[in-house]
Amino acid sequence: MAEKITPREVDYSQWYIDIVLNAKLADYSPVKGSMVIRPRGYAIWENIRDEFDRRFKETGHENAYFPLLIPMSFLEKEAEHVEGFAPELAVVTHGGGEKLEEPYCIRPTSETIIWSMYRNWIQSWRDLPLLINQWANVMRWEKRTRLFLRTSEFLWQEGHTAHETEQDAREETLRMLEVYRDVVERHLAVPVIPGIKSESEKFAGAVETYTIEAMMQDRKALQAGTSHFLGQNFAKAFDVKFQNRQGELEYVWATSWGVSTRLVGAVIMTHSDDKGLVLPPTLSPESAVIIPIYRNDSKAAVLEFSNRLQQDLKSQGFRVILDSDDSNSPGWKFAEWEMRGTPVRIEIGPRDMQSGQVIMVRRDSGEKIAVPVQEAGARLKMLHEEIQHALYARAKTFRDEHTVPVSSFDDLIAFFGAESAGTAEAKGGFAESLWCGSAACEATLKEKTKATLRCMPLDRQHGIAGHCAICGAPARHRAIFARNY
Amino acid sequence: MAEKITPREVDYSQWYIDIVLNAKLADYSPVKGSMVIRPRGYAIWENIRDEFDRRFKETGHENAYFPLLIPMSFLEKEAEHVEGFAPELAVVTHGGGEKLEEPYCIRPTSETIIWSMYRNWIQSWRDLPLLINQWANVMRWEKRTRLFLRTSEFLWQEGHTAHETEQDAREETLRMLEVYRDVVERHLAVPVIPGIKSESEKFAGAVETYTIEAMMQDRKALQAGTSHFLGQNFAKAFDVKFQNRQGELEYVWATSWGVSTRLVGAVIMTHSDDKGLVLPPTLSPESAVIIPIYRNDSKAAVLEFSNRLQQDLKSQGFRVILDSDDSNSPGWKFAEWEMRGTPVRIEIGPRDMQSGQVIMVRRDSGEKIAVPVQEAGARLKMLHEEIQHALYARAKTFRDEHTVPVSSFDDLIAFFGAESAGTAEAKGGFAESLWCGSAACEATLKEKTKATLRCMPLDRQHGIAGHCAICGAPARHRAIFARNY
Repeated sequence: MAEKITPREVDYSQWYIDIVLNAKLADYSPVKGSMVIRPRGYAIWENIRDEFDRRFKETGHENAYFPLLIPMSFLEKEAEHVEGFAPELAVVTHGGGEKLEEPYCIRPTSETIIWSMYRNWIQSWRDLPLLINQWANVMRWEKRTRLFLRTSEFLWQEGHTAHETEQDAREETLRMLEVYRDVVERHLAVPVIPGIKSESEKFAGAVETYTIEAMMQDRKALQAGTSHFLGQNFAKAFDVKFQNRQGELEYVWATSWGVSTRLVGAVIMTHSDDKGLVLPPTLSPESAVIIPIYRNDSKAAVLEFSNRLQQDLKSQGFRVILDSDDSNSPGWKFAEWEMRGTPVRIEIGPRDMQSGQVIMVRRDSGEKIAVPVQEAGARLKMLHEEIQHALYARAKTFRDEHTVPVSSFDDLIAFFGAESAGTAEAKGGFAESLWCGSAACEATLKEKTKATLRCMPLDRQHGIAGHCAICGAPARHRAIFARNY
Repeated sequence: MAEKITPREVDYSQWYIDIVLNAKLADYSPVKGSMVIRPRGYAIWENIRDEFDRRFKETGHENAYFPLLIPMSFLEKEAEHVEGFAPELAVVTHGGGEKLEEPYCIRPTSETIIWSMYRNWIQSWRDLPLLINQWANVMRWEKRTRLFLRTSEFLWQEGHTAHETEQDAREETLRMLEVYRDVVERHLAVPVIPGIKSESEKFAGAVETYTIEAMMQDRKALQAGTSHFLGQNFAKAFDVKFQNRQGELEYVWATSWGVSTRLVGAVIMTHSDDKGLVLPPTLSPESAVIIPIYRNDSKAAVLEFSNRLQQDLKSQGFRVILDSDDSNSPGWKFAEWEMRGTPVRIEIGPRDMQSGQVIMVRRDSGEKIAVPVQEAGARLKMLHEEIQHALYARAKTFRDEHTVPVSSFDDLIAFFGAESAGTAEAKGGFAESLWCGSAACEATLKEKTKATLRCMPLDRQHGIAGHCAICGAPARHRAIFARNY
């Protein structure tokens, strides 16, 4: 295969699509707005999912499963919630050959159905905290598909927890944000900024929404995960009270938090290059690919040597593919496995074999390293760690270079406006600006530049002094503004 | 809690519901026909799922994910398929606030959407076999819910494979049936009979359906998994052709196979007793529960001893709970953990502690064993193996005792008819009978006794000689007839 990948500079959107389709990560489906996740894309998702799942269980959460369908009347019990989600619903009107008395929607998120159950499950403070997570598909109607990043149906996890006190719930909200930050930075090698959303960007039904925001290679922001402090909003909507330690009835405090298959898109966009997919070794379905190089007279020996190395590495726990397909040339295979994102290529030719070495080639940097064959396992492990760190460091440097303090409205327009003009010198990025806190200022900036308030970084809210970059009024927050996915 | 469980003899259906609800495995939901899988039930499903997933990957299959929604017109492309599933569909007519041009159904199974994609993915014999599995929710409309066993929405896996030749596809069908048999018998400790379905009981769209059939404690059959040889039916419906090794275009050969969350119901029904849930150790969320027994003067010492044992067992890889809640008596805790199905209870009193031993109590048999504390890990491991084998052996003995050769219609009516009369002596079970192969005979028997043809056991089809037990015509098959879930 090894189809041509459109270079990023030519067309960034097409570059992304080319990688997703050619690396067989996903495909368009005949269902408008929905995608198919192909085995290679799904394997990456499994690696992401398993790491989160491990971390959720470590922090005391249990998995459960709630119905896909939600009675429409449930959504209406929380006023902001229904207002936020109503335009995106898929509605089931018929079941088993009959028109339903009350229509159902396919869950866009599960707060309402879950809190309707919590009402039966929570009576006393002894039932709290209730720490439940669900891995599920959800649906929010979209007309335009952007593979992994924006589809009607997507896969995600949604944590839904119930607590005795406001403080417990607030601590949980931040605890899970920190789990998200840690997994996304360490396991996905994607640097993120943890922050809080503005009123106009928060989850419909939340008191506060926390987020981790990443920067893609086109300098747009991608929201990589959110954690919501829901206060008592859903407890009140579904009448979930508990007897507290003083014997009084009180509404339960809540959180919810989620990450989705869009993280696969974030990984692709953060690390890949014009040759194709680049994956952090933690996420790659295979640890390395061995490509034997031989002529007829050396074929049998090189293949046997390659086979032995494969078995040796497998016995050390690596997932190693031996590509011995004769119908493709080594050069074709190099390009193919680079396009697929395998972190390390191991080349074995007759001369390498005779000197008892192999050549390891890093996917991220192209660096070639001669390795004595008996050290192959140890060196592969080291290379994986180096690649993992290098990918994170490169992405972080890129993001930091394109995170710029901007202090006036004119400068904001210049910063983002230049992007639409398409000049190479100034493409925007993250503008770090003081903000007065008014939604009007957000709206003004969005109208002029399409940039939105991505978050108020948690660690940059001390000692705010100065004026809102948009309206000039006294500033109350420091915020990151950016165009976003 | 430890609510009362209705004894099996009094009301078998209520006994089952009592266990599911009191052991907090699942709950009824406000969505008609749908259930909620609670954390304990979901943990059992995760243990079942993980073992199957491991075995699917071992046999070369990869996971993927296809859309939840299927265009209604897709189902109509395979005549038998749509006829079988149309009455059970949930239909989405509106999305994103608009009426859809073509309605979608929520997948009742995914053959059609998957084969519509295979059309793009398969060109040559080099693309085959294509071995894909999906873990997903599906929906088949039901009005009456039987928790885990019959719900509108359920979780399952569906394998969908594509092959070059009829023989390859037939081998795959039987390979996966054997994986099912092995996992269900060894991991779930549920004995099953592998067999082939009759025409009237096969999957809508299959050429042949293979099944594994289990017997529950009320002697009814439960279909525990099916594997279908689909021939070229779906390849023809979706025009999926490949260039074979001779360069000719040919339709692809197919299989599909699935197991679902109803297996959780099968496990509960097969092993449990009047005290509550009984679980094979492979599936239990916890390996053992430690219950300390003390008075005020021995409390600190017994708790410390118990704590040390818990840590010791955890470090050996066991999941061990220490129930040190003072608000419940030891006797209450015994009953509670028996109801929840924990395979081993470890009692520690002051006298045990002084003599350096603990008491292990088997959930399945109630047997008590004094174990020197330093041998606790080794003995717990042994006990788990013994319990796993004992549960399987007990279920197999029960099934074999109630599998009876029946050779005439009068005897079949007596065998099944006595059940409806409710006498304790003859409650039916599996009738093993010769059969002529006619659907009319199946219908006659079903009408009179509600018993259906569960399968023709694969290993009992040799040397058929005699007459159909129903109509007396020459027999062609040996079949198992039973009432079923």
